[in-house]
Amino acid sequence: MNNTKINTSHIINIGDEILSGHTINTNSSYIASTLYELGILTKKIIAIADDESEIITELDNSMKQTDIIFITGGLGPTNDDLTKNVLCRHFGLKLKFRPEVWDHITAIFAKRNMVPDEINREQALFPDSENVLPLQNSAGTAPGMHFIIDAKHIFVMPGVPNEMRSLMKEEIVPYIKENFSDNLYYRDINTTDISESSLYSILSKHPEFPFDCAIAFLPQGFGVTVRVKNFGKALERNKKVDSALIIIGSLVNDKIFTYDMKSPQHELVSLLKKLHFRLSAAESCTGGLFMNNITNIPGSSEVFSEGFVTYSNDSKFSILNVNPQTLSLNGAVSEETVSEMLDGLMAETKADIVCAVSGIAGPDGGSVSKPVGTVFAGFSLREEKKKHLRKFFFTGDRISIKEKASNKLMIEMIKYLKKEMP
Amino acid sequence: MNNTKINTSHIINIGDEILSGHTINTNSSYIASTLYELGILTKKIIAIADDESEIITELDNSMKQTDIIFITGGLGPTNDDLTKNVLCRHFGLKLKFRPEVWDHITAIFAKRNMVPDEINREQALFPDSENVLPLQNSAGTAPGMHFIIDAKHIFVMPGVPNEMRSLMKEEIVPYIKENFSDNLYYRDINTTDISESSLYSILSKHPEFPFDCAIAFLPQGFGVTVRVKNFGKALERNKKVDSALIIIGSLVNDKIFTYDMKSPQHELVSLLKKLHFRLSAAESCTGGLFMNNITNIPGSSEVFSEGFVTYSNDSKFSILNVNPQTLSLNGAVSEETVSEMLDGLMAETKADIVCAVSGIAGPDGGSVSKPVGTVFAGFSLREEKKKHLRKFFFTGDRISIKEKASNKLMIEMIKYLKKEMP
Repeated sequence: MNNTKINTSHIINIGDEILSGHTINTNSSYIASTLYELGILTKKIIAIADDESEIITELDNSMKQTDIIFITGGLGPTNDDLTKNVLCRHFGLKLKFRPEVWDHITAIFAKRNMVPDEINREQALFPDSENVLPLQNSAGTAPGMHFIIDAKHIFVMPGVPNEMRSLMKEEIVPYIKENFSDNLYYRDINTTDISESSLYSILSKHPEFPFDCAIAFLPQGFGVTVRVKNFGKALERNKKVDSALIIIGSLVNDKIFTYDMKSPQHELVSLLKKLHFRLSAAESCTGGLFMNNITNIPGSSEVFSEGFVTYSNDSKFSILNVNPQTLSLNGAVSEETVSEMLDGLMAETKADIVCAVSGIAGPDGGSVSKPVGTVFAGFSLREEKKKHLRKFFFTGDRISIKEKASNKLMIEMIKYLKKEMP
Repeated sequence: MNNTKINTSHIINIGDEILSGHTINTNSSYIASTLYELGILTKKIIAIADDESEIITELDNSMKQTDIIFITGGLGPTNDDLTKNVLCRHFGLKLKFRPEVWDHITAIFAKRNMVPDEINREQALFPDSENVLPLQNSAGTAPGMHFIIDAKHIFVMPGVPNEMRSLMKEEIVPYIKENFSDNLYYRDINTTDISESSLYSILSKHPEFPFDCAIAFLPQGFGVTVRVKNFGKALERNKKVDSALIIIGSLVNDKIFTYDMKSPQHELVSLLKKLHFRLSAAESCTGGLFMNNITNIPGSSEVFSEGFVTYSNDSKFSILNVNPQTLSLNGAVSEETVSEMLDGLMAETKADIVCAVSGIAGPDGGSVSKPVGTVFAGFSLREEKKKHLRKFFFTGDRISIKEKASNKLMIEMIKYLKKEMP
């Protein structure tokens, strides 16, 4: 792998809510993955409190180590929001009231049928320097800031996720695209039903491993993603990655369910669109997660019309017509019950493909023969009149068992549809 | 607020998957919130790459600044997993093969119907020192490590979330409970329908603000949480926080929907249990998220039997019997449609309380009269024969609109059930 210098970034999140663990730091992953796609590597992500000396220490450190710094949080109107004042003091800048920012704040409040308070005027104060550019926040009242100091770029955004995302999309990404060159290339291979160690073992036995690239193994809910990356000049680096992909593909072909997808739901919805298939689902243990994941994808209404959460035994009978005798003989968590759930869905809907899942997500409800984590899931195509059903055993807590079951059901469908469909 | 010294921690996450943004750092929030409950404040969370010099730099830094350090990641069997070797080199320790760890690895593989590879033997190597204690990993093959060096505690765990969680629960929390004193106390007040700035403005006008406590404002999907905290001796600090709570309660009483809850679904499920109510839901724009959130709560099957995702117009008619004329006259996103969805649910289920939601989550489908973010949601109690319906307007992207709609519907029910029920 060559050593071309590439642009790097640090992300600094300011605020107690991340340090107390009550807010999951989705902002960082959003920023980092956005940068990754643009060829900028994030070298460090740091979360610290609303504390002047810590903010300054980390900022100074990062300015020594990296080119681009993203700061989120601490831009609210209340006294625990320090970021703007701290940065201005540190860089020796004054704040100035900006009437156009105040107009924007008033308009945002009006849209929500509220009136801004005196304290919101604080948010209309902006660093008075030509080295600080305002970033227009279309989703909230706090403007973002872009400092250009000592040839380093510092982007400052609110910590509220949708405000941060809108600033990234509308203001920062276009700037980065125009001003920083694209110099990283990677592709992902998503595998299932094989462990990280077995994958490594198979790949590393190949005489050319690591195929002149950097290879990383990323454990995921559905299995392991093999990431192949290379830096440098576009033509050369892309060629190396693509050749590595072909070799890896030939080594573990039967374990691969897709390349370069963002999530199983993303891939499944796009496959169903191509096939002009409509999907319907009946969920027991996953309790709506499967359908929630599907409907997170914009445009999913093209392929998804309806589905059922049949959580209780009664509802499996009353909604999906599962035979009460099947339930009492085999239990709700059984191949027989899931099979009849599929039959019920076929009868109740006009879907081209139906799927169903029933299992024990825990923490209670397990037994010796069916411990927590036992899941039956499957699908059926209307035109085939055949059922594809499997028993799974997932480890983890309630939420990770739900996630694994939902992902696995999607992956089973993806694998089948890719193989069997034209 | 007094200044009693309290134990603090740093969390260091090692691995490319967080820096590339493809994995959301839920490990840190899990560890930080667990520590918070135990009275230990996390001062910094750092994510860095699998890179020897960066790991050492951050570790040395943290050992100077804090008492307890949590490291996750880089314990897998492959060549990009450096943590164990780096720590051993840094502290001058040798690795030794531990047969009992190897037995554990073999057993875990057997449970998954797999056989360990030669490369997994690497995971049975453990630092040969009485200052390093093994942490038993019941969910995976990599043992955790507890270094006690210069009176600092370094806990090292795998990055796979359910393995990390099981190590925290089974090994680390009991150790911390026994060895570190509890010296932080906080309580949360969850508000809705009021902005952070208005809340601050009302509270700060009180002559005793901040009531001898630290007050933080945390924006959430459902509104703003006011967190009141105090450190020090148990009796005194608890008294101060509880008094502050009473004052704040009297100042913004009508905006508070609950105290100290972890999530709206947590509160709603526990309320329904108390009332012996069963709930059923019909979701359009939220696409299963509402039911997924409900069924994330262990024991939710006591109060939740079934529900429907009626995404298409056809399904609102065929499953819930919404009048096609209602749909064509008012649209799927209308008070009239949601009202008939509630009627349909009452007829289709035996639930004591039913709820329904329909809206435009975007990015497409908005219009001038009903822009993206317009949501109608409501609920109805069987014994009352009355409908509680509201129109909302949420900002943000598709996923945050879904989240806000689901949370808001839960909060509306919580507020009503708390006020009206005995």
